Amino acid sequence: QKMKKQISNAISDFFFEYETPRQVLVRNRRVGVVCRLIQLGVLAYIIGWVFIYEKGYQSTDTAVSSVFSKMKGVGYTNINGTERIWDVDYVFPSQGDSSFVVMTNYIITEGQKLGKCPELPGKHNCRKDSDCEGGVYKRTGNGEMTGVCVNSTMTCEVLAWCPIENDQHVPNPPLLMSAENYTLFIKNSVTFPLFDVTRSNLVEGIDTSYISTCLYDPEDAPLCPIFKLGDIIKLSGFNFETIARVGGAIGIVIDWTCNLDYDVKHCKPKYNFHGLYGNPSETDKTRASVGYNFRYAKHYLENNVEKRTLLKVFGIRIDIIVHSLARKFDIIPTLTAIGSGVGIFGVATVVCDLVLLYLLPKREFYKNMKFKHTLTPEQYPSRYQATQDSRHVQH
Amino acid sequence: QKMKKQISNAISDFFFEYETPRQVLVRNRRVGVVCRLIQLGVLAYIIGWVFIYEKGYQSTDTAVSSVFSKMKGVGYTNINGTERIWDVDYVFPSQGDSSFVVMTNYIITEGQKLGKCPELPGKHNCRKDSDCEGGVYKRTGNGEMTGVCVNSTMTCEVLAWCPIENDQHVPNPPLLMSAENYTLFIKNSVTFPLFDVTRSNLVEGIDTSYISTCLYDPEDAPLCPIFKLGDIIKLSGFNFETIARVGGAIGIVIDWTCNLDYDVKHCKPKYNFHGLYGNPSETDKTRASVGYNFRYAKHYLENNVEKRTLLKVFGIRIDIIVHSLARKFDIIPTLTAIGSGVGIFGVATVVCDLVLLYLLPKREFYKNMKFKHTLTPEQYPSRYQATQDSRHVQH
Amino acid sequence: QKMKKQISNAISDFFFEYETPRQVLVRNRRVGVVCRLIQLGVLAYIIGWVFIYEKGYQSTDTAVSSVFSKMKGVGYTNINGTERIWDVDYVFPSQGDSSFVVMTNYIITEGQKLGKCPELPGKHNCRKDSDCEGGVYKRTGNGEMTGVCVNSTMTCEVLAWCPIENDQHVPNPPLLMSAENYTLFIKNSVTFPLFDVTRSNLVEGIDTSYISTCLYDPEDAPLCPIFKLGDIIKLSGFNFETIARVGGAIGIVIDWTCNLDYDVKHCKPKYNFHGLYGNPSETDKTRASVGYNFRYAKHYLENNVEKRTLLKVFGIRIDIIVHSLARKFDIIPTLTAIGSGVGIFGVATVVCDLVLLYLLPKREFYKNMKFKHTLTPEQYPSRYQATQDSRHVQH
Repeated sequence: QKMKKQISNAISDFFFEYETPRQVLVRNRRVGVVCRLIQLGVLAYIIGWVFIYEKGYQSTDTAVSSVFSKMKGVGYTNINGTERIWDVDYVFPSQGDSSFVVMTNYIITEGQKLGKCPELPGKHNCRKDSDCEGGVYKRTGNGEMTGVCVNSTMTCEVLAWCPIENDQHVPNPPLLMSAENYTLFIKNSVTFPLFDVTRSNLVEGIDTSYISTCLYDPEDAPLCPIFKLGDIIKLSGFNFETIARVGGAIGIVIDWTCNLDYDVKHCKPKYNFHGLYGNPSETDKTRASVGYNFRYAKHYLENNVEKRTLLKVFGIRIDIIVHSLARKFDIIPTLTAIGSGVGIFGVATVVCDLVLLYLLPKREFYKNMKFKHTLTPEQYPSRYQATQDSRHVQH
Repeated sequence: QKMKKQISNAISDFFFEYETPRQVLVRNRRVGVVCRLIQLGVLAYIIGWVFIYEKGYQSTDTAVSSVFSKMKGVGYTNINGTERIWDVDYVFPSQGDSSFVVMTNYIITEGQKLGKCPELPGKHNCRKDSDCEGGVYKRTGNGEMTGVCVNSTMTCEVLAWCPIENDQHVPNPPLLMSAENYTLFIKNSVTFPLFDVTRSNLVEGIDTSYISTCLYDPEDAPLCPIFKLGDIIKLSGFNFETIARVGGAIGIVIDWTCNLDYDVKHCKPKYNFHGLYGNPSETDKTRASVGYNFRYAKHYLENNVEKRTLLKVFGIRIDIIVHSLARKFDIIPTLTAIGSGVGIFGVATVVCDLVLLYLLPKREFYKNMKFKHTLTPEQYPSRYQATQDSRHVQH
Repeated sequence: QKMKKQISNAISDFFFEYETPRQVLVRNRRVGVVCRLIQLGVLAYIIGWVFIYEKGYQSTDTAVSSVFSKMKGVGYTNINGTERIWDVDYVFPSQGDSSFVVMTNYIITEGQKLGKCPELPGKHNCRKDSDCEGGVYKRTGNGEMTGVCVNSTMTCEVLAWCPIENDQHVPNPPLLMSAENYTLFIKNSVTFPLFDVTRSNLVEGIDTSYISTCLYDPEDAPLCPIFKLGDIIKLSGFNFETIARVGGAIGIVIDWTCNLDYDVKHCKPKYNFHGLYGNPSETDKTRASVGYNFRYAKHYLENNVEKRTLLKVFGIRIDIIVHSLARKFDIIPTLTAIGSGVGIFGVATVVCDLVLLYLLPKREFYKNMKFKHTLTPEQYPSRYQATQDSRHVQH
């Protein structure tokens, strides 16, 4: 019974009583102004920077995305009178990935078949057969050495696809300068799983009829998803002819930075273009990384002999990179920011106290105001029971 | 000597003394209840929401992942009596990437060779030769105009791969309806570098014998890594015949949301399927983005003339997207959450004080309890030494 | 007029007055030491762990990256006296993606053409025609069943590319063991958008002349971007011959963990190698996931009949995975960490108070020191107006 009463007393005490810190109001111009300025500064930081500038009241999410691409355009080459039209064969791979290569120049070696032939003059030189160890591959060689040094070229003979490709002279100007007029159509969809929002780069107002006529321009048509290859290169800061000749790598960054506290229709992509390996101005520094090429062979049977056409393809590699960041109001980061802000407010009080208690000439006076000293109770036993809160020792 | 003693005194003061704020216990029902409720609310928020619901005591990590895929199945077409079996040629690319296209329909143009021929009737119409400027490419044209207007079709003549592909009529029903029964096998491994955990979608219990017989079903076999193409389309909400005819893009999201505080074997993938460009119900709005196709050519020699077979492939593009989020207890976010929570607790006290000091009718009384006023010491020099901290009311 | 004065008074009060909590200095060895130790612990945690170890004063960013690869080397096979050189045909796809397959073994089926032939013995056995339902495809079958059971093999006849591929015996040793000496050149660029920093794996000092001779070695040449395929397999912990025979999947992780508070030239990649599906030691557990293969067909015309060469390719799939994390000093996380730290400091005070007020034998004494009790003002009305907090100067 007694215990029950005690508990109910404790509960009523807990609910009807409330504790609040006792404070000293220090009336001092210097300390007051310093302290208020610090507090206002902290407040301005929390509201202005954390909340308004960095939007600390929002949670963020990045997107899962998918990208499709489609190149259109016709190329034309005329090598020694042999005309050729290129329409679907200049994109690798053909199915429209987010990363692909557009052929702009090539070295073609037709009619290669398996056999023995000497390496090109210049590399793998030899003087006698013993310079060419049979059955061995050199790192930059084209085949298995047969152990014979060919007199006419003074190079090792190899078992390889013959004749050996000669890629010392890259066609200049590039064979497919017409690639400048190819157009690239990009479809991109992004989904922010946290906010359950899906967007496509074909936003409101970009319909079939607009797409059939528009061409991307950073000023006039920033949302048109059709890009001229020449424009892409120019916007990256490169010269088309240079990059078309030796190849290069361009990144198209689709930037989805969205504030989903506004209507979702304001969530629109921005397109940026830049070279992936050094900017054009730094070519000397990054010389090792200039150019982009790969080899590719088409096999066929001629009179029941397997032959192949080898292409060394120089091209523009395009990587479509999606960079996404969506923000939306969320209660957790808001309260975390507020809580952290109150914590920093506490720092302001600590700084003010340091000024008050250690720097002011009247610091002793303020110390006495702020602190009450206790010794152990034994040191003033007679006064203890009746008077504790007031008559303790002054220093 | 004296200084040394001072320092040791300061240290002993620092260690043996401890300061704690003095507080007023206000015995007022209204303020007490309001204040305790606010405090309990903050406590409930911190424990219930931040810790239990949002798991604020855990740090998070996303995975690096790799995905392999393998399509199996046999397709059969019969065009005008020409039967054909499709087994390995319907997936692009063939090596099993995370993003690939399954051919479901196509327009074939056989025996194209380089030459001059008129454009198809309907596009690029002309009345006289001067309508077709020689040496120029039209954006949607198929080749370089020769400057001739062909009488029979009233279209410009172009240097191109002839005959020009006619893609105005897409086969309906799609030629490879049997694609519905193809099966897709997905291998996916994820690594969470922060937690040093690697998982594969072939989790415990998914062994060779199970794989050889199972088929994914959202209810009965949610972990079977073998999917019927028809099921994938159906689970995305599309009609197979429609999407097979004009092509489409489907995302398979493998969702790894893992709480690594439990045993790692509970970390299992979930498979979701959705259309990448608009849902089926929104087809009208997103008409611009319906369909998926690309062109693809196979070259061959016929009587020493290079010819090609051009395929306009309509297909289902499948993007396998890995979405991962692992969580594990970590001391830093725990303490950050606690610290931030204590800060928010401070906000509760501030709110209570505002009520106490500005809203209550007896606010002057409580203000006097809470605050002690100081003027500058000069204003009461005579009382200073002996009396400042002691003569207020005793209870 | 009066109101204006009141407002200006309130403002001057606000700026020239400042409140600081009143505190009790408790002189008690046990409480003092406990409390100081807790506070020092919290301080050590905040400074040592949050700031120094976890670098809580920095904000972090992950990179957008692009990867190009180039395989070089010559392979040689001799099957029943037919020699063949492989130079550009062993990488799929050929254009140098971040994910590709290097062929190391294969089963070749030459001269397939469309027709009717029985399935291989062993699978799809039948006893009579009715076992082979005409027009139906079996899940693991190679074509459409014709409804005939062939006597010689006792298997169903199918309409398919004939003869059916026999892949029961995988060549051992692998046909392209020479793949061990292929070299892989990796170009990788990363951009941290938040910090506007772009880096390439061809860092300072890695120029053309160094690349032409170097070979990656974890100790001697950790920055050389040229890797021997055999080394990659060995560093992943696998046996080259095993993985070359049945195929496998290797991840090359390029780790960009950069502290951008130092000079950007210290931001260098680290290369790691590991098997993507289980480690070599766990082969028994993960047997279901061993091996990597895909099929691939080359079509040709022979006497105006379409034929194809079918290759079942076993190969090493290499995924180049970029893992990036850059850190740089930022004011927001710094202040958030400090604010949160002050909050945790508050927890220390709360713990000390609990010790002081509930655990010490003299707790009643300290309670009286810390708390001042108020009853409702009505309970001591006579003293209220003149005396409560008392005799300091009223303003």
